[in-house]
Amino acid sequence: MPRPKTPRLNHDMIVDKALEMVATPAGLTMPGLAKQLNVSVSSVYHYVPSRTHLLELIRNRIAALQLDEVDWDADWRAVLVEWVRAYRLAFAPYPELVALLTAQTITDAKVLDVYDRIAGVIGRAGIATADILSVITVLDNYALGSALDRAAPDVVWSVEGATRPHLSAAVAGTQSGVARADEAFEYGLQILIDGLAARLTARTGDETSTGNR
Amino acid sequence: MPRPKTPRLNHDMIVDKALEMVATPAGLTMPGLAKQLNVSVSSVYHYVPSRTHLLELIRNRIAALQLDEVDWDADWRAVLVEWVRAYRLAFAPYPELVALLTAQTITDAKVLDVYDRIAGVIGRAGIATADILSVITVLDNYALGSALDRAAPDVVWSVEGATRPHLSAAVAGTQSGVARADEAFEYGLQILIDGLAARLTARTGDETSTGNR
Repeated sequence: MPRPKTPRLNHDMIVDKALEMVATPAGLTMPGLAKQLNVSVSSVYHYVPSRTHLLELIRNRIAALQLDEVDWDADWRAVLVEWVRAYRLAFAPYPELVALLTAQTITDAKVLDVYDRIAGVIGRAGIATADILSVITVLDNYALGSALDRAAPDVVWSVEGATRPHLSAAVAGTQSGVARADEAFEYGLQILIDGLAARLTARTGDETSTGNR
Repeated sequence: MPRPKTPRLNHDMIVDKALEMVATPAGLTMPGLAKQLNVSVSSVYHYVPSRTHLLELIRNRIAALQLDEVDWDADWRAVLVEWVRAYRLAFAPYPELVALLTAQTITDAKVLDVYDRIAGVIGRAGIATADILSVITVLDNYALGSALDRAAPDVVWSVEGATRPHLSAAVAGTQSGVARADEAFEYGLQILIDGLAARLTARTGDETSTGNR
Protein backbone atom coordinates (compact mmCIF):
# COMPACT_ATOMS: atom_id res chain seq x y z
CA MET A 1 0.00 0.00 0.00
CA PRO A 2 1.44 3.38 -0.89
CA ARG A 3 2.09 5.79 1.95
CA PRO A 4 -0.30 8.71 2.11
CA LYS A 5 1.28 11.66 0.39
CA THR A 6 2.58 14.49 2.58
CA PRO A 7 0.04 17.29 2.32
CA ARG A 8 1.11 19.96 -0.12
CA LEU A 9 1.84 23.38 1.21
CA ASN A 10 -1.21 25.63 0.95
CA HIS A 11 -2.28 29.13 1.86
CA ASP A 12 -4.04 28.07 5.04
CA MET A 13 -0.99 26.24 6.36
CA ILE A 14 1.22 29.21 5.57
CA VAL A 15 -1.12 31.71 7.23
CA ASP A 16 -1.48 29.49 10.33
CA LYS A 17 2.26 29.40 10.79
CA ALA A 18 2.71 33.09 9.96
CA LEU A 19 0.20 34.05 12.67
CA GLU A 20 2.19 32.00 15.18
CA MET A 21 5.39 33.76 14.16
CA VAL A 22 4.11 37.33 14.32
CA ALA A 23 4.24 37.38 18.12
CA THR A 24 7.73 35.88 18.39
CA PRO A 25 10.73 38.12 19.15
CA ALA A 26 12.13 37.52 15.67
CA GLY A 27 8.84 38.51 14.09
CA LEU A 28 7.55 37.39 10.72
CA THR A 29 10.13 36.89 7.97
CA MET A 30 9.92 34.76 4.85
CA PRO A 31 13.09 32.73 5.64
CA GLY A 32 11.88 32.21 9.21
CA LEU A 33 8.52 31.10 7.93
CA ALA A 34 10.13 28.59 5.55
CA LYS A 35 12.16 27.19 8.42
CA GLN A 36 9.06 26.81 10.61
CA LEU A 37 7.21 25.09 7.75
CA ASN A 38 10.19 22.82 7.15
CA VAL A 39 10.34 23.74 3.47
CA SER A 40 12.71 25.78 1.33
CA VAL A 41 12.31 29.54 1.06
CA SER A 42 11.60 29.10 -2.65
CA SER A 43 8.69 26.76 -1.80
CA VAL A 44 7.11 29.49 0.30
CA TYR A 45 7.64 32.03 -2.48
CA HIS A 46 6.00 29.59 -4.91
CA TYR A 47 2.75 29.94 -2.97
CA VAL A 48 3.15 33.49 -1.65
CA PRO A 49 5.09 35.80 -3.97
CA SER A 50 6.03 38.39 -1.31
CA ARG A 51 5.78 39.39 2.33
CA THR A 52 3.24 42.02 1.27
CA HIS A 53 1.15 39.28 -0.31
CA LEU A 54 1.48 37.17 2.83
CA LEU A 55 0.20 40.05 4.96
CA GLU A 56 -2.82 40.37 2.64
CA LEU A 57 -3.54 36.65 3.13
CA ILE A 58 -3.40 37.25 6.88
CA ARG A 59 -5.74 40.21 6.47
CA ASN A 60 -8.08 37.94 4.52
CA ARG A 61 -8.11 35.38 7.35
CA ILE A 62 -8.91 38.02 9.95
CA ALA A 63 -11.63 39.56 7.77
CA ALA A 64 -13.28 36.16 7.53
CA LEU A 65 -13.71 36.25 11.31
CA GLN A 66 -15.51 39.56 10.94
CA LEU A 67 -17.79 38.49 8.11
CA ASP A 68 -19.22 35.53 9.98
CA GLU A 69 -20.16 37.64 13.00
CA VAL A 70 -22.23 40.27 11.23
CA ASP A 71 -25.91 40.04 10.33
CA TRP A 72 -25.76 42.21 7.24
CA ASP A 73 -29.52 42.59 6.98
CA ALA A 74 -29.93 44.17 10.41
CA ASP A 75 -30.48 47.86 11.17
CA TRP A 76 -27.42 49.97 10.27
CA ARG A 77 -26.60 50.57 13.94
CA ALA A 78 -26.56 46.84 14.63
CA VAL A 79 -24.42 46.13 11.55
CA LEU A 80 -21.82 48.73 12.53
CA VAL A 81 -21.76 47.62 16.18
CA GLU A 82 -21.35 43.96 15.22
CA TRP A 83 -18.67 44.80 12.66
CA VAL A 84 -16.60 46.91 15.07
CA ARG A 85 -16.94 44.30 17.83
CA ALA A 86 -15.91 41.46 15.53
CA TYR A 87 -13.10 43.53 14.01
CA ARG A 88 -11.65 44.29 17.46
CA LEU A 89 -11.88 40.69 18.67
CA ALA A 90 -10.35 39.35 15.46
CA PHE A 91 -7.26 41.56 15.91
CA ALA A 92 -6.94 41.42 19.71
CA PRO A 93 -4.85 38.20 19.71
CA TYR A 94 -2.39 39.73 17.23
CA PRO A 95 -1.38 43.22 18.44
CA GLU A 96 1.90 43.04 16.50
CA LEU A 97 -0.08 42.66 13.27
CA VAL A 98 -1.95 45.92 13.56
CA ALA A 99 0.87 48.27 12.54
CA LEU A 100 1.97 45.84 9.81
CA LEU A 101 -1.48 45.78 8.21
CA THR A 102 -2.25 49.49 8.54
CA ALA A 103 1.08 50.20 6.82
CA GLN A 104 0.08 48.68 3.49
CA THR A 105 -2.63 49.16 0.88
CA ILE A 106 -5.56 46.76 1.22
CA THR A 107 -5.67 44.61 -1.91
CA ASP A 108 -7.36 41.42 -0.64
CA ALA A 109 -10.69 40.99 -2.44
CA LYS A 110 -12.65 39.66 0.52
CA VAL A 111 -11.50 42.48 2.78
CA LEU A 112 -12.36 45.05 0.14
CA ASP A 113 -15.79 43.40 -0.14
CA VAL A 114 -16.31 43.86 3.61
CA TYR A 115 -15.50 47.56 3.29
CA ASP A 116 -17.82 47.86 0.29
CA ARG A 117 -20.66 46.40 2.33
CA ILE A 118 -19.87 48.69 5.25
CA ALA A 119 -19.79 51.71 2.93
CA GLY A 120 -23.18 50.65 1.55
CA VAL A 121 -24.67 50.32 5.03
CA ILE A 122 -23.38 53.75 6.07
CA GLY A 123 -24.66 55.35 2.88
CA ARG A 124 -28.11 53.78 3.20
CA ALA A 125 -28.27 55.00 6.80
CA GLY A 126 -28.19 58.52 5.40
CA ILE A 127 -24.60 59.67 5.95
CA ALA A 128 -23.48 62.03 3.16
CA THR A 129 -21.20 60.41 0.57
CA ALA A 130 -18.41 62.87 1.41
CA ASP A 131 -18.45 61.62 5.00
CA ILE A 132 -18.67 57.85 4.42
CA LEU A 133 -14.94 57.25 4.28
CA SER A 134 -14.49 59.31 7.44
CA VAL A 135 -17.06 57.17 9.23
CA ILE A 136 -15.34 53.97 8.08
CA THR A 137 -11.96 55.33 9.16
CA VAL A 138 -13.20 56.46 12.56
CA LEU A 139 -14.70 53.03 13.31
CA ASP A 140 -11.59 51.34 11.93
CA ASN A 141 -9.25 53.44 14.10
CA TYR A 142 -11.40 52.81 17.14
CA ALA A 143 -11.58 49.05 16.52
CA LEU A 144 -7.81 48.74 16.09
CA GLY A 145 -6.90 50.95 19.04
CA SER A 146 -9.36 48.97 21.15
CA ALA A 147 -7.90 45.67 19.94
CA LEU A 148 -4.50 46.80 21.20
CA ASP A 149 -6.05 47.82 24.51
CA ARG A 150 -7.69 44.42 24.89
CA ALA A 151 -4.21 42.90 24.71
CA ALA A 152 -2.93 45.25 27.44
CA PRO A 153 -1.70 43.86 30.78
CA ASP A 154 -4.10 43.60 33.73
CA VAL A 155 -2.50 46.67 35.29
CA VAL A 156 -2.35 49.41 32.66
CA TRP A 157 -1.49 52.30 34.99
CA SER A 158 0.86 51.64 37.89
CA VAL A 159 -0.78 53.88 40.52
CA GLU A 160 0.36 52.24 43.76
CA GLY A 161 2.41 54.25 46.22
CA ALA A 162 2.25 57.62 44.49
CA THR A 163 0.04 60.65 44.89
CA ARG A 164 -2.06 60.85 41.77
CA PRO A 165 -5.50 61.30 43.27
CA HIS A 166 -7.56 61.61 40.11
CA LEU A 167 -6.01 58.67 38.30
CA SER A 168 -6.02 56.50 41.44
CA ALA A 169 -9.71 57.19 42.03
CA ALA A 170 -10.50 56.43 38.38
CA VAL A 171 -8.60 53.14 38.48
CA ALA A 172 -10.16 52.18 41.83
CA GLY A 173 -13.64 52.93 40.49
CA THR A 174 -13.62 50.39 37.69
CA GLN A 175 -12.86 46.80 36.79
CA SER A 176 -9.43 45.54 35.80
CA GLY A 177 -8.06 43.37 33.03
CA VAL A 178 -10.13 42.43 30.02
CA ALA A 179 -13.34 43.50 31.81
CA ARG A 180 -11.98 47.06 31.99
CA ALA A 181 -11.05 47.00 28.32
CA ASP A 182 -14.44 45.55 27.29
CA GLU A 183 -16.40 48.07 29.38
CA ALA A 184 -14.48 51.03 27.96
CA PHE A 185 -14.80 49.72 24.42
CA GLU A 186 -18.58 49.42 24.67
CA TYR A 187 -18.83 52.86 26.28
CA GLY A 188 -17.00 54.47 23.37
CA LEU A 189 -18.74 52.41 20.70
CA GLN A 190 -22.11 53.58 22.02
CA ILE A 191 -20.93 57.20 21.86
CA LEU A 192 -19.79 56.75 18.26
CA ILE A 193 -23.00 55.10 17.11
CA ASP A 194 -25.14 57.66 18.96
CA GLY A 195 -23.06 60.40 17.37
CA LEU A 196 -23.63 59.02 13.88
CA ALA A 197 -27.35 58.72 14.58
CA ALA A 198 -27.37 62.34 15.79
CA ARG A 199 -25.76 63.47 12.54
CA LEU A 200 -28.58 61.76 10.65
CA THR A 201 -31.39 63.06 12.79
CA ALA A 202 -29.95 66.57 12.64
CA ARG A 203 -30.46 66.38 8.89
CA THR A 204 -33.87 64.74 8.93
CA GLY A 205 -35.30 66.75 11.84
CA ASP A 206 -36.11 63.78 14.10
CA GLU A 207 -36.59 65.07 17.64
CA THR A 208 -35.03 62.22 19.59
CA SER A 209 -31.53 63.62 19.39
CA THR A 210 -29.77 66.81 18.42
CA GLY A 211 -26.58 66.99 16.39
CA ASN A 212 -24.02 69.53 17.54
CA ARG A 213 -22.18 69.93 14.33
CA MET B 1 45.54 70.96 25.77
CA PRO B 2 43.48 67.94 26.82
CA ARG B 3 41.07 66.54 24.27
CA PRO B 4 37.42 67.26 25.05
CA LYS B 5 35.99 64.22 26.74
CA THR B 6 33.66 62.03 24.73
CA PRO B 7 30.15 62.82 25.95
CA ARG B 8 28.96 60.25 28.44
CA LEU B 9 26.06 58.10 27.44
CA ASN B 10 22.79 59.51 28.72
CA HIS B 11 19.09 58.71 28.57
CA ASP B 12 18.40 61.21 25.79
CA MET B 13 21.07 59.74 23.55
CA ILE B 14 19.79 56.24 24.19
CA VAL B 15 16.17 57.16 23.48
CA ASP B 16 17.14 59.05 20.30
CA LYS B 17 18.87 55.97 18.94
CA ALA B 18 16.16 53.58 20.14
CA LEU B 19 13.52 55.60 18.27
CA GLU B 20 15.60 55.31 15.10
CA MET B 21 15.87 51.55 15.57
CA VAL B 22 12.20 50.83 16.19
CA ALA B 23 11.32 51.21 12.51
CA THR B 24 14.20 49.07 11.20
CA PRO B 25 13.53 45.49 10.05
CA ALA B 26 15.54 44.12 12.99
CA GLY B 27 13.50 46.18 15.45
CA LEU B 28 14.65 47.38 18.84
CA THR B 29 16.97 45.08 20.78
CA MET B 30 19.42 45.92 23.56
CA PRO B 31 22.43 44.39 21.74
CA GLY B 32 21.45 46.17 18.53
CA LEU B 33 21.10 49.43 20.43
CA ALA B 34 24.56 49.03 21.98
CA LYS B 35 26.03 48.44 18.54
CA GLN B 36 24.35 51.55 17.13
CA LEU B 37 25.61 53.59 20.08
CA ASN B 38 29.09 52.15 19.63
CA VAL B 39 29.28 51.03 23.26
CA SER B 40 29.18 47.69 25.03
CA VAL B 41 25.88 46.07 25.91
CA SER B 42 26.78 46.38 29.58
CA SER B 43 27.19 50.15 29.15
CA VAL B 44 23.62 50.38 27.89
CA TYR B 45 22.38 48.25 30.77
CA HIS B 46 24.25 50.54 33.18
CA TYR B 47 21.93 53.38 32.14
CA VAL B 48 18.82 51.39 31.26
CA PRO B 49 18.31 48.25 33.32
CA SER B 50 15.95 46.49 30.89
CA ARG B 51 14.12 46.69 27.59
CA THR B 52 10.93 47.35 29.58
CA HIS B 53 12.63 50.31 31.23
CA LEU B 54 13.83 51.54 27.84
CA LEU B 55 10.27 51.45 26.50
CA GLU B 56 9.12 53.51 29.49
CA LEU B 57 11.81 56.10 28.69
CA ILE B 58 10.48 56.20 25.14
CA ARG B 59 6.95 56.60 26.49
CA ASN B 60 8.25 59.47 28.61
CA ARG B 61 9.72 61.20 25.56
CA ILE B 62 6.48 60.88 23.62
CA ALA B 63 4.42 62.08 26.57
CA ALA B 64 6.58 65.21 26.75
CA LEU B 65 5.40 66.06 23.23
CA GLN B 66 1.82 65.83 24.48
CA LEU B 67 2.33 67.92 27.60
CA ASP B 68 3.71 70.91 25.73
CA GLU B 69 0.74 71.04 23.36
CA VAL B 70 -2.06 71.19 25.90
CA ASP B 71 -3.38 74.31 27.62
CA TRP B 72 -4.42 72.64 30.84
CA ASP B 73 -6.44 75.62 32.06
CA ALA B 74 -8.79 75.61 29.06
CA ASP B 75 -12.36 74.30 28.98
CA TRP B 76 -12.49 70.49 29.40
CA ARG B 77 -13.49 70.00 25.77
CA ALA B 78 -10.48 71.98 24.58
CA VAL B 79 -8.13 70.11 26.92
CA LEU B 80 -9.33 66.71 25.70
CA VAL B 81 -9.24 67.72 22.03
CA GLU B 82 -5.71 69.12 22.36
CA TRP B 83 -4.55 66.07 24.27
CA VAL B 84 -5.93 63.56 21.76
CA ARG B 85 -4.53 65.57 18.82
CA ALA B 86 -1.09 65.83 20.40
CA TYR B 87 -1.16 62.18 21.48
CA ARG B 88 -1.93 61.04 17.91
CA LEU B 89 0.72 63.24 16.31
CA ALA B 90 3.34 62.17 18.84
CA PHE B 91 2.82 58.50 17.97
CA ALA B 92 2.19 58.83 14.23
CA PRO B 93 5.90 58.71 13.29
CA TYR B 94 6.37 55.48 15.28
CA PRO B 95 3.61 53.01 14.36
CA GLU B 96 5.79 50.06 15.40
CA LEU B 97 5.93 51.48 18.93
CA VAL B 98 2.22 51.44 19.54
CA ALA B 99 1.80 47.71 20.19
CA LEU B 100 5.03 47.64 22.21
CA LEU B 101 3.85 50.36 24.57
CA THR B 102 0.25 49.17 24.94
CA ALA B 103 1.63 45.74 25.89
CA GLN B 104 3.26 46.90 29.12
CA THR B 105 2.19 48.61 32.35
CA ILE B 106 2.75 52.37 32.39
CA THR B 107 5.27 53.14 35.14
CA ASP B 108 6.88 56.36 33.90
CA ALA B 109 6.10 59.16 36.37
CA LYS B 110 5.59 61.90 33.80
CA VAL B 111 3.20 59.80 31.74
CA LEU B 112 1.23 58.86 34.83
CA ASP B 113 1.09 62.57 35.72
CA VAL B 114 -0.44 63.29 32.29
CA TYR B 115 -3.12 60.67 32.91
CA ASP B 116 -3.75 62.06 36.40
CA ARG B 117 -4.35 65.51 34.92
CA ILE B 118 -6.62 64.07 32.23
CA ALA B 119 -8.59 62.13 34.87
CA GLY B 120 -8.94 65.37 36.85
CA VAL B 121 -10.21 67.28 33.83
CA ILE B 122 -12.76 64.57 32.99
CA GLY B 123 -13.95 64.39 36.60
CA ARG B 124 -14.33 68.17 36.90
CA ALA B 125 -16.32 68.17 33.66
CA GLY B 126 -18.91 66.09 35.46
CA ILE B 127 -18.34 62.54 34.23
CA ALA B 128 -19.15 59.97 36.93
CA THR B 129 -16.08 58.53 38.66
CA ALA B 130 -17.04 55.03 37.53
CA ASP B 131 -16.86 56.19 33.89
CA ILE B 132 -13.62 58.24 34.01
CA LEU B 133 -11.33 55.35 33.15
CA SER B 134 -13.62 54.36 30.29
CA VAL B 135 -13.45 57.90 28.89
CA ILE B 136 -9.65 57.91 29.15
CA THR B 137 -9.45 54.50 27.49
CA VAL B 138 -11.82 55.44 24.66
CA LEU B 139 -9.80 58.57 23.83
CA ASP B 140 -6.57 56.60 24.18
CA ASN B 141 -7.76 53.86 21.82
CA TYR B 142 -8.97 56.42 19.32
CA ALA B 143 -5.71 58.40 19.47
CA LEU B 144 -3.56 55.31 18.93
CA GLY B 145 -5.73 53.83 16.18
CA SER B 146 -5.72 57.21 14.45
CA ALA B 147 -1.94 57.50 14.83
CA LEU B 148 -1.59 54.21 12.93
CA ASP B 149 -3.99 55.45 10.27
CA ARG B 150 -1.96 58.66 9.84
CA ALA B 151 1.00 56.45 8.97
CA ALA B 152 -1.03 54.54 6.37
CA PRO B 153 -0.09 54.66 2.67
CA ASP B 154 -1.70 57.23 0.38
CA VAL B 155 -3.92 54.53 -1.07
CA VAL B 156 -5.55 52.62 1.79
CA TRP B 157 -8.15 50.75 -0.26
CA SER B 158 -7.18 49.49 -3.70
CA VAL B 159 -10.46 50.10 -5.53
CA GLU B 160 -9.29 50.40 -9.12
CA GLY B 161 -10.60 47.95 -11.68
CA ALA B 162 -13.15 46.14 -9.53
CA THR B 163 -16.85 46.53 -8.97
CA ARG B 164 -17.27 47.77 -5.43
CA PRO B 165 -19.65 50.66 -6.01
CA HIS B 166 -20.13 51.82 -2.42
CA LEU B 167 -16.46 51.77 -1.48
CA SER B 168 -15.38 53.31 -4.78
CA ALA B 169 -17.85 56.17 -4.38
CA ALA B 170 -16.72 56.74 -0.79
CA VAL B 171 -13.05 56.82 -1.79
CA ALA B 172 -13.77 59.10 -4.76
CA GLY B 173 -15.74 61.46 -2.53
CA THR B 174 -12.91 62.36 -0.20
CA GLN B 175 -9.29 63.46 -0.02
CA SER B 176 -6.36 61.05 -0.07
CA GLY B 177 -3.21 60.63 1.98
CA VAL B 178 -2.66 62.46 5.24
CA ALA B 179 -5.51 64.88 4.43
CA ARG B 180 -7.93 61.92 4.41
CA ALA B 181 -6.57 60.66 7.72
CA ASP B 182 -6.70 64.11 9.31
CA GLU B 183 -10.25 64.78 8.13
CA ALA B 184 -11.51 61.44 9.43
CA PHE B 185 -9.70 61.88 12.73
CA GLU B 186 -11.29 65.28 13.36
CA TYR B 187 -14.73 63.95 12.35
CA GLY B 188 -14.53 61.19 14.94
CA LEU B 189 -12.95 63.34 17.63
CA GLN B 190 -15.87 65.77 17.34
CA ILE B 191 -18.34 62.90 17.71
CA LEU B 192 -16.55 61.65 20.82
CA ILE B 193 -16.38 65.08 22.48
CA ASP B 194 -20.01 65.83 21.56
CA GLY B 195 -20.98 62.45 22.98
CA LEU B 196 -19.24 63.15 26.27
CA ALA B 197 -20.92 66.56 26.46
CA ALA B 198 -24.27 64.89 25.80
CA ARG B 199 -23.67 62.53 28.71
CA LEU B 200 -23.12 65.54 30.98
CA THR B 201 -26.03 67.59 29.76
CA ALA B 202 -28.32 64.58 30.05
CA ARG B 203 -27.49 64.62 33.78
CA THR B 204 -27.69 68.38 34.32
CA GLY B 205 -30.74 69.00 32.15
CA ASP B 206 -29.13 71.40 29.71
CA GLU B 207 -31.30 71.62 26.61
CA THR B 208 -28.63 71.95 23.94
CA SER B 209 -28.16 68.23 23.49
CA THR B 210 -29.82 64.98 24.45
CA GLY B 211 -27.96 61.96 25.71
CA ASN B 212 -29.16 58.66 24.34
CA ARG B 213 -27.87 56.48 27.10
